[in-house]
Amino acid sequence: MHADLIANRVAGATLATVFDVVTESAAEMANRHGVRVSASVDDVLAGDIDAVAICTSTDTHAELITRAAQAGVPTFCEKPVSLDLPTVDAALAAVELAGTLLQIGFNRRFDRAHQLVQQAATSGELGDLFVVKITSRDTACPPLAYLERSGGMFLDMTIHDFDMARYVTGSEVIDVFACGAVLGDPAIGEIGDIDTAALTLRHASGCLTLIDNSRHAGYGYDQRVEAFGSRGIASSENPVVHSAVRRDPTGHRGAVMFDSFIDRYIESFVRQWEAFVNAVFTGGPSPASGADARAPLVIGIAANESMTKRVPVAIA
Amino acid sequence: MHADLIANRVAGATLATVFDVVTESAAEMANRHGVRVSASVDDVLAGDIDAVAICTSTDTHAELITRAAQAGVPTFCEKPVSLDLPTVDAALAAVELAGTLLQIGFNRRFDRAHQLVQQAATSGELGDLFVVKITSRDTACPPLAYLERSGGMFLDMTIHDFDMARYVTGSEVIDVFACGAVLGDPAIGEIGDIDTAALTLRHASGCLTLIDNSRHAGYGYDQRVEAFGSRGIASSENPVVHSAVRRDPTGHRGAVMFDSFIDRYIESFVRQWEAFVNAVFTGGPSPASGADARAPLVIGIAANESMTKRVPVAIA
Amino acid sequence: MHADLIANRVAGATLATVFDVVTESAAEMANRHGVRVSASVDDVLAGDIDAVAICTSTDTHAELITRAAQAGVPTFCEKPVSLDLPTVDAALAAVELAGTLLQIGFNRRFDRAHQLVQQAATSGELGDLFVVKITSRDTACPPLAYLERSGGMFLDMTIHDFDMARYVTGSEVIDVFACGAVLGDPAIGEIGDIDTAALTLRHASGCLTLIDNSRHAGYGYDQRVEAFGSRGIASSENPVVHSAVRRDPTGHRGAVMFDSFIDRYIESFVRQWEAFVNAVFTGGPSPASGADARAPLVIGIAANESMTKRVPVAIA
Amino acid sequence: MHADLIANRVAGATLATVFDVVTESAAEMANRHGVRVSASVDDVLAGDIDAVAICTSTDTHAELITRAAQAGVPTFCEKPVSLDLPTVDAALAAVELAGTLLQIGFNRRFDRAHQLVQQAATSGELGDLFVVKITSRDTACPPLAYLERSGGMFLDMTIHDFDMARYVTGSEVIDVFACGAVLGDPAIGEIGDIDTAALTLRHASGCLTLIDNSRHAGYGYDQRVEAFGSRGIASSENPVVHSAVRRDPTGHRGAVMFDSFIDRYIESFVRQWEAFVNAVFTGGPSPASGADARAPLVIGIAANESMTKRVPVAIA
Repeated sequence: MHADLIANRVAGATLATVFDVVTESAAEMANRHGVRVSASVDDVLAGDIDAVAICTSTDTHAELITRAAQAGVPTFCEKPVSLDLPTVDAALAAVELAGTLLQIGFNRRFDRAHQLVQQAATSGELGDLFVVKITSRDTACPPLAYLERSGGMFLDMTIHDFDMARYVTGSEVIDVFACGAVLGDPAIGEIGDIDTAALTLRHASGCLTLIDNSRHAGYGYDQRVEAFGSRGIASSENPVVHSAVRRDPTGHRGAVMFDSFIDRYIESFVRQWEAFVNAVFTGGPSPASGADARAPLVIGIAANESMTKRVPVAIA
Repeated sequence: MHADLIANRVAGATLATVFDVVTESAAEMANRHGVRVSASVDDVLAGDIDAVAICTSTDTHAELITRAAQAGVPTFCEKPVSLDLPTVDAALAAVELAGTLLQIGFNRRFDRAHQLVQQAATSGELGDLFVVKITSRDTACPPLAYLERSGGMFLDMTIHDFDMARYVTGSEVIDVFACGAVLGDPAIGEIGDIDTAALTLRHASGCLTLIDNSRHAGYGYDQRVEAFGSRGIASSENPVVHSAVRRDPTGHRGAVMFDSFIDRYIESFVRQWEAFVNAVFTGGPSPASGADARAPLVIGIAANESMTKRVPVAIA
Repeated sequence: MHADLIANRVAGATLATVFDVVTESAAEMANRHGVRVSASVDDVLAGDIDAVAICTSTDTHAELITRAAQAGVPTFCEKPVSLDLPTVDAALAAVELAGTLLQIGFNRRFDRAHQLVQQAATSGELGDLFVVKITSRDTACPPLAYLERSGGMFLDMTIHDFDMARYVTGSEVIDVFACGAVLGDPAIGEIGDIDTAALTLRHASGCLTLIDNSRHAGYGYDQRVEAFGSRGIASSENPVVHSAVRRDPTGHRGAVMFDSFIDRYIESFVRQWEAFVNAVFTGGPSPASGADARAPLVIGIAANESMTKRVPVAIA
Repeated sequence: MHADLIANRVAGATLATVFDVVTESAAEMANRHGVRVSASVDDVLAGDIDAVAICTSTDTHAELITRAAQAGVPTFCEKPVSLDLPTVDAALAAVELAGTLLQIGFNRRFDRAHQLVQQAATSGELGDLFVVKITSRDTACPPLAYLERSGGMFLDMTIHDFDMARYVTGSEVIDVFACGAVLGDPAIGEIGDIDTAALTLRHASGCLTLIDNSRHAGYGYDQRVEAFGSRGIASSENPVVHSAVRRDPTGHRGAVMFDSFIDRYIESFVRQWEAFVNAVFTGGPSPASGADARAPLVIGIAANESMTKRVPVAIA
């Protein structure tokens, strides 16, 4: 998806080369877009490129970020950097040493509706921020095999919401209380994970954030953010797949929501790439930096502790 | 309904007495509200009252308006004054001679949503007014016996929309093209009436008004007004009976609209009475005057001619 | 308000008599509705009445409930019975002994939209219930003098949401975690209360309820309930004061929400009385019983403990 | 736009070659998508292609359709075929003789929301169809130089609505009454055109269609279709550019509508191409045939006559 977007829909970007350990995938992608296949990561980093996009499996992110930084190449990397905090810190240290750009794939920051909520919340339009509410529910649960390696709901799924909480409030989280449950599928409990969660975050600013998550929102991929302050509220509602409505004696009917993050967030991915291109060529700050990658991981680790101990846990 | 509203819900108003040719009805109403029954219309008009409300059958309106005017009593009268233009003119002449207040029951002028459309349209907020669209559809057709005496769709039903067109635009209608059809029930055609209509009005200001009507809107009592000008649009949508919504994998479902004018417009009736009370005690102008009663009748008569001759008909 | 509703808008009910320690108020009310003033509570209870409505100050509720029960009179009482649990228990014991009807004024149970959410949640339409979300925010903070005697936010305001959580889920609460803050007005903190809260409830069924409260929702009286289950969601949105909308090059604008509970919930008060009348004359169960009055108080007391100790507190 | 869509977003389609009388444009397009430039129309039609897309200026459409038909090549052509009816007929005769596929670019037929309205209207879901309402307003008026060659509002703009009226009702138009006005810009009147219109169509089925048009909808590109029948209504509302909303004490604010047909209808263009690809490879019927191209032109010519003569004009 990312290669196609870069090649076709991102103004100012051109796909230069592709590398994949699955060589057939690399060949197909290169052929589709008329670019060459690189023989190795080194080959990519040594090429005539302005930036690199790391869209590999999670366990390779930290090393690839480090190598790109050492090569002085501006880097986009899918989240998470790693589920292991020291590994994250080592990679971020390499980036800091090199002084290169690093942008993490928190694409929801580039969703136009969430952005407007953030702007209303941080610009003073909403006055003093009191409460943020984030609902994030997946249409269908991923396979158990995926979940077993995912780090658990808070590091795999809620991590986006922790990022959103920091993004919308502009304030760090000071403690978290997390309550988890297995309500939709006992098999998830058997592998030690949860499928339903309710969390309360307190921010340094005093603002409270409530998050609720589910793996089983059969009615659609549900992603809402609401910011409430002394002057009003701003919220991002769920877009629906078409704008037709019907009325009959039983009431009003309208469209379903999108059922996958790709359909829901495709515009945000394009805007994410546009923001990256802009940061690369203007030398501007990263709109989703290494620090932004690290903080939600720390909150997620604390949330796991909170759920286990049944107490709020402070963020170091 | 009117007596109950006056007695219970209209600030500044008190029910003083009631008269009804059906003496049982008068007695019941008087008893319910602890007031006396008047023996005659003269008795009512000679009593210690500030104003009179005429809510009788249509064929008595003109005479009662005339008698109230001659008695110098501010008068509210349900629409229409009469279906016969000379009769209307005679009653209005009596009112003009007496210099009394006359307010006609065009309650939709007091619906809060329609009022906001009118204010947007006439205050300059919408800029130059281009197009007004009025949809007015009844949930269920009245009995044929009623329709036979109603004067036909344009004088019975569309007359409210002609009033709304004048009210919202603040501009007189100069011609009308009317297209009628019998689509829902052939019996309506057999008595010489129609159940579906589309009309185009041209206003002195240049603005065009499109009206569509139906007697068979099974999905609910549908009343919408939209005003479109150089700076934007304002529209009144249909309220629904509750604010609950549901989502499942088939989409979104919401409430039905109201199915009767009483439920839809109850607040407008209260506001109509409040406006009347205000006009009585301040001596202010009527918010729905005799001229406002006459003009829609003239348009309706022209609409009937247009439908028959299949040409636009100018309003004298 | 209650007397006016009973006298004018509740089918099947008639106002028989009034008593008020402020005799002028009683006289005015009696005069307005053409009924006699009772000389005492005993006089009321000994009269020819089918039921009594206790709408006095909170500190008199328990005693009056007890006396009505002892007189064998079906009783409606405004919430709360008392802020003191033993006092509540004594009153409820008197009711149980007498076998009389007791209905507590949790009017939100009679809001049509909340009712539809409850029906969807408890009828199986939503499948297994996963998460309930309740937002309850007041437009403006009551006077400090009121707050000082109110028992604090959880007993004064959130108590309605505790009731709603039980009502919508049909499941008892087993523990509560409460997080409170003073974000809108430091004076509220100075009297030992809070103005902002986030709570997580766990139900016996496994369902999680998230509640957020504020005393400072300047944009309107905000009352929303959402129930999410394996088959979909049902939610009650906020009604708005009119149905007009406007569009211009800056976007879309619509009406404000209601700003007071009376305007927002007036229909629910009528329906509450209708339900009471029905229970009185059919001998049916109370739709908001003494047990329903007691349980939210117990949760509120636990919530206060949770907020203080910063741990979840189990409900006995 | 069409070449980019075909190359990048239409499943089953590949761009084979391009030809443009402006050779630089052809070269740039060919280069961008890695295809060769054809030297002439003959060169294109003689090539190894499955179909041809005619996206040239209107005055070339009829001749190119004819040549493609004679070459036996399935053809997509932008609307209109021609503003001259005999020219249209000659081209359609060539297509009929050749038995080739011809699909006209009425992209709105492929808008998902309009399609759902059409399906509801023609499947019986809405029962007997009574009234269709079509609103079609451009955000900003094209340059006068364009308008002078456009054939006038009814052939340039309303022609889409005439198509929509036939598409949604599934019934031919039997007569039209058209009312035009110059309300937004006198310069449009000076070149003999109008900028505002209201039309009433009668269909063979009895259904009435009301159309309103404007060249000056500064609030956004406004495209709505509503179908009303004995069992309910279906309507396509305007999508908006994002799903964020705000509330403050002045009310509710939401997003603007799209301001151009490209943004509003981009998905419909992709779906139009997918339908064409499907028709080419399955040999299925054209979803927007030559007859569908001819009928709206005939209605448009009648509408011009109606506006001039101020009478309804029958469709031959």
